[in-house]
Amino acid sequence: MYSYQYLLDFTRRIFRRIGCSEEDSTTIADVFIAAELRGHASHGMLRIKDYYELWKAERINVNPVIRIVHESPSTAVVDGDNAIGMVAAKRSMEIAIEKAKKAGTGWVATRNSNHFGIAGYYAMMALEHDMAGICLTNANPLVAPALSISRMMGTNPVAVAVPALRQPPFVADFATTPIARGKLAVSEKKGENVPYGYVQDKSGNPSNDPSILRTGGSMLTLGGDKLHGSHKGYCLSSIVDIFSSVFSGANFGPFVPPSVAYLPVLEQKTGKGTGHFFGAVRIDAFQSAREFKEKMDEWIETFRSAKPADGQERVLIPGDPEREATEKFMKEGISIVPAILKDLHDIALELEIPFE
Amino acid sequence: MYSYQYLLDFTRRIFRRIGCSEEDSTTIADVFIAAELRGHASHGMLRIKDYYELWKAERINVNPVIRIVHESPSTAVVDGDNAIGMVAAKRSMEIAIEKAKKAGTGWVATRNSNHFGIAGYYAMMALEHDMAGICLTNANPLVAPALSISRMMGTNPVAVAVPALRQPPFVADFATTPIARGKLAVSEKKGENVPYGYVQDKSGNPSNDPSILRTGGSMLTLGGDKLHGSHKGYCLSSIVDIFSSVFSGANFGPFVPPSVAYLPVLEQKTGKGTGHFFGAVRIDAFQSAREFKEKMDEWIETFRSAKPADGQERVLIPGDPEREATEKFMKEGISIVPAILKDLHDIALELEIPFE
Repeated sequence: MYSYQYLLDFTRRIFRRIGCSEEDSTTIADVFIAAELRGHASHGMLRIKDYYELWKAERINVNPVIRIVHESPSTAVVDGDNAIGMVAAKRSMEIAIEKAKKAGTGWVATRNSNHFGIAGYYAMMALEHDMAGICLTNANPLVAPALSISRMMGTNPVAVAVPALRQPPFVADFATTPIARGKLAVSEKKGENVPYGYVQDKSGNPSNDPSILRTGGSMLTLGGDKLHGSHKGYCLSSIVDIFSSVFSGANFGPFVPPSVAYLPVLEQKTGKGTGHFFGAVRIDAFQSAREFKEKMDEWIETFRSAKPADGQERVLIPGDPEREATEKFMKEGISIVPAILKDLHDIALELEIPFE
Repeated sequence: MYSYQYLLDFTRRIFRRIGCSEEDSTTIADVFIAAELRGHASHGMLRIKDYYELWKAERINVNPVIRIVHESPSTAVVDGDNAIGMVAAKRSMEIAIEKAKKAGTGWVATRNSNHFGIAGYYAMMALEHDMAGICLTNANPLVAPALSISRMMGTNPVAVAVPALRQPPFVADFATTPIARGKLAVSEKKGENVPYGYVQDKSGNPSNDPSILRTGGSMLTLGGDKLHGSHKGYCLSSIVDIFSSVFSGANFGPFVPPSVAYLPVLEQKTGKGTGHFFGAVRIDAFQSAREFKEKMDEWIETFRSAKPADGQERVLIPGDPEREATEKFMKEGISIVPAILKDLHDIALELEIPFE
């Protein structure tokens, strides 16, 4: 068991040591640990090795100059200068929030970035400003369009955070596939199979092997099969890809660069790096923020009172599981599975950073 | 078989006869027939009876005064004055487009409206302005949150239209459930069962009965079961509801008024009428519209070249099936199933409008 603070300090030191600024290292560590605290270990300490290996391969820029390359009153395109995703994403969301202060809403499309951890982190940045926050990102291609076997899309998550008054905020943060890619990695590290319906093999046959992506398999879209709406998951994932890439000038779909160093850099490019899309929506551009937040309390209380199905204790509000995980992990500490611990010890040794 | 023009004229006459203006009748008829042409009969002639019955019950306003009640440079809240949904929706999307011309993007939340037909119609209004269009709406509650049996949400569709250059536009328009509510009605009219995975009975048991909603059953969210991401469908549907209702001041979730007269008006209200949310995003608020549309061509051509799974002929782009349906129905005419024809003949008789 590790304390939140211990992992935060350790992670910050890693990125400081590879050349990130103090501020950027803090941002990166904060997003990684937020993933652990929110119960999304798939985007937490597990991923540090991937970032480290990308740095060793000189595939990410630890001293980026992030800048606005195009703008209108409510929009901007940001070039992330191949930054570690967290750094480009946090800056982009700050710009969206600034735009919203003046124009009512702010929308930023970001190109030339990389994997940025959990999308919810950036959406939630809007909350303290009495704004709703939105964050989309594309990701390296592992998902096949409905009725296809070609890996064309990432797990392309959607995050939306909406403030309430007495109730905790509404925070939805979900991959547009039945399961996040990182969850396959966690199952693989644990040596477990996954349920059918998440992945198919390279010929399109059902599979329960979490490592199937290494042998040409692909992930399925939300909905599963045609009869149950796989084309809707494909629509949703496409929308995320288009807003993240075609609007920003990043690579789209199959051309999004790998977020792991063991996959080669793609020769063909359709833009720059990975793309994200951020939105900040000022509540009082629509109505009194106070009344809005009271109404959100009412929304949350209404849905929380839904009658559970047989065998279920209660009905959750998006954000509930993550908030409860945070309370638990802050109190009890965070456990890390042995395979990930070994990676972290190896990194600590190479960088001469203490890690127990 | 009916021609597009015949059904359009007939539908326009119905709404003219019940008191809508010439312009509003044309709008309403255009959206109804667009649904038929796009192959979404579930939102076409089938629904005219519902609207007619609501009018007979004095539950919709055929002479609305639609107005902006709150605004910022990029946003507005529109009060639909209990209009027929098409009328409030078209006006709201026009306002979003006007806002986008100045601010780069325009976002309109609409309250005090009603069922508006197909969401894609309004998203597509943006295309001719070199804008992407977005349309969300809540709907009367038929869907249970993940792991619940309470009918708390509508099928809450998402529509996004993005322009291309040589390629036809990208148009995604989908309910955030495995199936649209109207498709259950079509199966019911045809006397067919539906596949398992769309609905559950009032106790939460699996069902294949398309009429189960009449006896306390509910529709399931996209994803189906917990293991396959039903909570993600719940997140998505919640986002649509919150943007359509809490932002606009419309009723949310379980309090959205029924779009059929055979269900009683709810006593408890949390806002005004049904709510929608519209977005217009000027392409050149992000980059040159020409370059963007060329990149969309490339996106579309790339995804169209995805390798089909065994037994599939090709991989589709969102908007392909609807465009192909339109070409077919414009050429061959539109067929209407007997049960719906009977309803239309009854209405024609009552309103003294010719219908063959």
